Amino acid sequence: MSSFQPLRGVVPPVCTPLDASGEIDTASLTRHVEHFVSGGVHGLFALGSSSEVAFLTDRQRETVLRTVVEAVAGRVPVLAGVIDMTTPRVLVHAEAAREAGADALVATAPFYARTHPVEIAHHFRTLRARVDLPLYAYDLPVSVHSKLSVALVRELAEDGTLAGLKDSSGDEGGLRRLLVELGGRHGRADGPAPGFSVLTGSELTVDAALLAGADGVVPGLGNVDPAGYVRLYDAVRAGDLDRAVKEQERLVELFGMVDAGPESEMGRNSSAIGAFKHALRLLGVFAEGTTAAPQIQLGEASVALVEERLRGAGLLPVR
Amino acid sequence: MSSFQPLRGVVPPVCTPLDASGEIDTASLTRHVEHFVSGGVHGLFALGSSSEVAFLTDRQRETVLRTVVEAVAGRVPVLAGVIDMTTPRVLVHAEAAREAGADALVATAPFYARTHPVEIAHHFRTLRARVDLPLYAYDLPVSVHSKLSVALVRELAEDGTLAGLKDSSGDEGGLRRLLVELGGRHGRADGPAPGFSVLTGSELTVDAALLAGADGVVPGLGNVDPAGYVRLYDAVRAGDLDRAVKEQERLVELFGMVDAGPESEMGRNSSAIGAFKHALRLLGVFAEGTTAAPQIQLGEASVALVEERLRGAGLLPVR
Amino acid sequence: MSSFQPLRGVVPPVCTPLDASGEIDTASLTRHVEHFVSGGVHGLFALGSSSEVAFLTDRQRETVLRTVVEAVAGRVPVLAGVIDMTTPRVLVHAEAAREAGADALVATAPFYARTHPVEIAHHFRTLRARVDLPLYAYDLPVSVHSKLSVALVRELAEDGTLAGLKDSSGDEGGLRRLLVELGGRHGRADGPAPGFSVLTGSELTVDAALLAGADGVVPGLGNVDPAGYVRLYDAVRAGDLDRAVKEQERLVELFGMVDAGPESEMGRNSSAIGAFKHALRLLGVFAEGTTAAPQIQLGEASVALVEERLRGAGLLPVR
Amino acid sequence: MSSFQPLRGVVPPVCTPLDASGEIDTASLTRHVEHFVSGGVHGLFALGSSSEVAFLTDRQRETVLRTVVEAVAGRVPVLAGVIDMTTPRVLVHAEAAREAGADALVATAPFYARTHPVEIAHHFRTLRARVDLPLYAYDLPVSVHSKLSVALVRELAEDGTLAGLKDSSGDEGGLRRLLVELGGRHGRADGPAPGFSVLTGSELTVDAALLAGADGVVPGLGNVDPAGYVRLYDAVRAGDLDRAVKEQERLVELFGMVDAGPESEMGRNSSAIGAFKHALRLLGVFAEGTTAAPQIQLGEASVALVEERLRGAGLLPVR
Repeated sequence: MSSFQPLRGVVPPVCTPLDASGEIDTASLTRHVEHFVSGGVHGLFALGSSSEVAFLTDRQRETVLRTVVEAVAGRVPVLAGVIDMTTPRVLVHAEAAREAGADALVATAPFYARTHPVEIAHHFRTLRARVDLPLYAYDLPVSVHSKLSVALVRELAEDGTLAGLKDSSGDEGGLRRLLVELGGRHGRADGPAPGFSVLTGSELTVDAALLAGADGVVPGLGNVDPAGYVRLYDAVRAGDLDRAVKEQERLVELFGMVDAGPESEMGRNSSAIGAFKHALRLLGVFAEGTTAAPQIQLGEASVALVEERLRGAGLLPVR
Repeated sequence: MSSFQPLRGVVPPVCTPLDASGEIDTASLTRHVEHFVSGGVHGLFALGSSSEVAFLTDRQRETVLRTVVEAVAGRVPVLAGVIDMTTPRVLVHAEAAREAGADALVATAPFYARTHPVEIAHHFRTLRARVDLPLYAYDLPVSVHSKLSVALVRELAEDGTLAGLKDSSGDEGGLRRLLVELGGRHGRADGPAPGFSVLTGSELTVDAALLAGADGVVPGLGNVDPAGYVRLYDAVRAGDLDRAVKEQERLVELFGMVDAGPESEMGRNSSAIGAFKHALRLLGVFAEGTTAAPQIQLGEASVALVEERLRGAGLLPVR
Repeated sequence: MSSFQPLRGVVPPVCTPLDASGEIDTASLTRHVEHFVSGGVHGLFALGSSSEVAFLTDRQRETVLRTVVEAVAGRVPVLAGVIDMTTPRVLVHAEAAREAGADALVATAPFYARTHPVEIAHHFRTLRARVDLPLYAYDLPVSVHSKLSVALVRELAEDGTLAGLKDSSGDEGGLRRLLVELGGRHGRADGPAPGFSVLTGSELTVDAALLAGADGVVPGLGNVDPAGYVRLYDAVRAGDLDRAVKEQERLVELFGMVDAGPESEMGRNSSAIGAFKHALRLLGVFAEGTTAAPQIQLGEASVALVEERLRGAGLLPVR
Repeated sequence: MSSFQPLRGVVPPVCTPLDASGEIDTASLTRHVEHFVSGGVHGLFALGSSSEVAFLTDRQRETVLRTVVEAVAGRVPVLAGVIDMTTPRVLVHAEAAREAGADALVATAPFYARTHPVEIAHHFRTLRARVDLPLYAYDLPVSVHSKLSVALVRELAEDGTLAGLKDSSGDEGGLRRLLVELGGRHGRADGPAPGFSVLTGSELTVDAALLAGADGVVPGLGNVDPAGYVRLYDAVRAGDLDRAVKEQERLVELFGMVDAGPESEMGRNSSAIGAFKHALRLLGVFAEGTTAAPQIQLGEASVALVEERLRGAGLLPVR
């Protein structure tokens, strides 16, 4: 692990382009990697929730990861989600990710079966012991229905099981408690877990998270506007909070694209991912805006809203 | 589907014996099939939640299913759980289950990503259209965090998408509404979905469910005492409710084996499955009581409780 | 407590008639008591959830209870709900209920503030110690967001804190475990808490609950058809399960009146209580079908559905 | 409403001192008001969740409010919580609060009965129409189990129903969306609801909320260290984010006092409120650290932790 630098900056989860039949559109995916890298991102997170990892077969996951790793060609680190229900199944994905060239792994707590915190700790320790790659915990109670406690994350950070945390719990108070326990905004390097990276998945409050000492962000909306998140990150690093807040506010307005009309018969997941994918289509990155089965596809009114928000944020027309 | 009879009776979910390394113990599994068949069960449900399906790799799932199908040798139908997050991943399992010789498939609603009821309906319809086996919906909100509504199940029953329902929702009022809408206890054959099977997974109220018109039961505790559930089923069919209640009460007491002490650091899932597996070990069916990672293993006090409950129910010493 | 017989039979929660201004309509309430008593009920539960107790001011609660007690005139016992957030507030209601002539009290676990099971036990013990009336625990997680465990209820039953339980948790498996621990269907009198009454609030599975050994039922739908629930109860007591199931199935169909259309902008609570109240209006018992603020009133289509269900169940035209 | 200035700054919820018998200790409460005012707070919120409002009888609520209003003597505005289940009951509290001299009211969405968003809007509109005081919505899903949507708050802000929001939902992303929709950090005065106050209840991320444009904070921990929150607020207003973050980090460490040991048999609510009250006792403000029934009292080890955190934050010894 010594050669792997603590992860910092903007590390977007990579949306997965699909063709009309639901297969991976590798040409669009390669274009998307360039979209990210030219936007200045500091890393990429393939096979996360925004990548529709839950909807991809093992074969498709491998195609995605190999395509991303090849297109990135070492310019930034590639984190790979290894999302499945329990330790034995996650281990299969972890081995596959290692072989496909991932630089690090991202795993959630177990789901489907109810699990005790001691079992969750055992889960992460087993993953770390069995596959020799830096391991990030992905705290995502909305999907896995358990929350990683501050005490558990701290324990696994201090003993070297975890290289970092991707916090998508929405519990900003808990995140702040963790950051303070690890040394606060300025004392992390001398704290109990010096190399530990804290990344927030809360894409609407990135200025606040960075102000509090988070190392970076994994923004789903970063698919649409990677350069915007990089500007936001740079502004905070430069101490220009006014500029950071303005950039964040622009991104919050852009995020409004996920609001499919109340008449839409679709899940919250399919409306958000569908909006990002159609935005990428309108931006010329993706060939299609298709989401995976059984998700309902975005209707015309929702696509029009996406376009409106892109224009409002200055992303259309493409310059 | 015409050759497949509506499923009735006791259809236990098959616990999966593991050796100390976590691999499938096929010898114990074969013995377990005989334990079930000699107990008089009317079908078997492999790869369900009580089978630790969430903890088994795809390779292990195949081993389990082929072993069960071979050991059963056509004596009773074998249902196969195809448990995964979304339609594309479930389809992979469904194809594998068909090739391994399953007689029917059992699928939950999608999980991990939030899904709209219209998307859930689309999920089941796609599964049915793509794999030519009878399909059972598995209503398990405790694991998948959405509930199949009476209206949705009825719609999918009437249009032939579903051959039946395994209801583990614990919502007995909703189940009763469904049964009444389908014709009630005596009018099901003339109702809107005549061949549709309703199986309850509520193992502690089987007498009540059968009284209300359910066709059968999928009892996790049926791993330990299949003959007891068969006697309970037969008593209700024979109209001897007094005998049925007494048998159910004996089984409720036996079920107390799942209560690991409050000091135990284990999940509710691991304590229940661990108890069933240790009971099977004490009964001479399983070689080990091991549960899959990352579950904590049952402690001595909990195993002693299992033994006590087996004696109390007259199952030990083995005759 | 010695003079208070264990409660058995049908004990409906009494809907509270309101006039157009939201005030208690005592004339309708007095008629409603006669509707119940002439239907043969074994007790009445005033100021429960179906009574809109959460919507009534303290002054209105007193009016309701005094009106019911006076109209009942000792013919059946009157239980009074003392529904509020915590012990000090519930004690105020309990004193008022005692002064208004209630025969017993019904209290939930605390709500609004998160409470530990030890604090819940302390809550019930304090209530019992401070007001000398039999105390029933009301298990209603849908409203109070905590579930009374089998162990807690058993402890409070054995030490005499509780005279009984009104179980509206929907957890029929847990209820069965409690009944078996208390001695099962036939051994309750010799069990650890001989006089303890178990009443189910699950109005769609009363046949099943009585079969399992419950003492009685508190059916919201019993407002509309008290005589139907009494026939159901009597059929089970007489051992005629076939008749009981048929009566229960008729009541399940009648219950369909609570399904306001999906287009309705109203809560589940307001649609169910509104349906019962409009049914009582159509039956000539209530002057109005008004529900309390801020509930939305039933629309015409929903009222038409109520009427249709009343006709279907043979309750209209009134004979 | 024209004379009531938009509320800004630090507006702590006032903990309610109780004597050993559970009665209001008005002498301590009067001292506590001085503790707040001398700390520089900009308003006080009496009868909120941290005030144990759920545990106070109506008579005690009146005593609390009259004591606070008298002690404050107009130096800062006094907001009064009117916490109860539904509109009719809240109206009783609202009238009482107006008579006791409150400057504004704070109400949650209805609870106990499930309520539709349209009914929630009707609730707030009725309260505003019937009692002529500025009305704040209190978004507290952990207690009332429904979340006020951005759209609903915005609608009630624009039409003048609400004077402001106290957001204790923990949904910082939603709060940011609301702030941006209302004009963002700098454009609120020209936005769709110019006088609307947004106060956060998230006491561990106040720097972030103020950075994003919130008008103020309602910190439970502000009972213990009002001057600290005032310094934090002033630092942000002065544009000194570094100082703000340092102050916030000190307060986050101080907040660790709420962690009662895992062995404690008490609810999360009783451990937090108990910690604040014992801290006030150690600071010489309260005579006792007693919390209301049925809460378990803090044990010695927990009290020692409180003392340790007070010392760590420089609040002990009292200077």
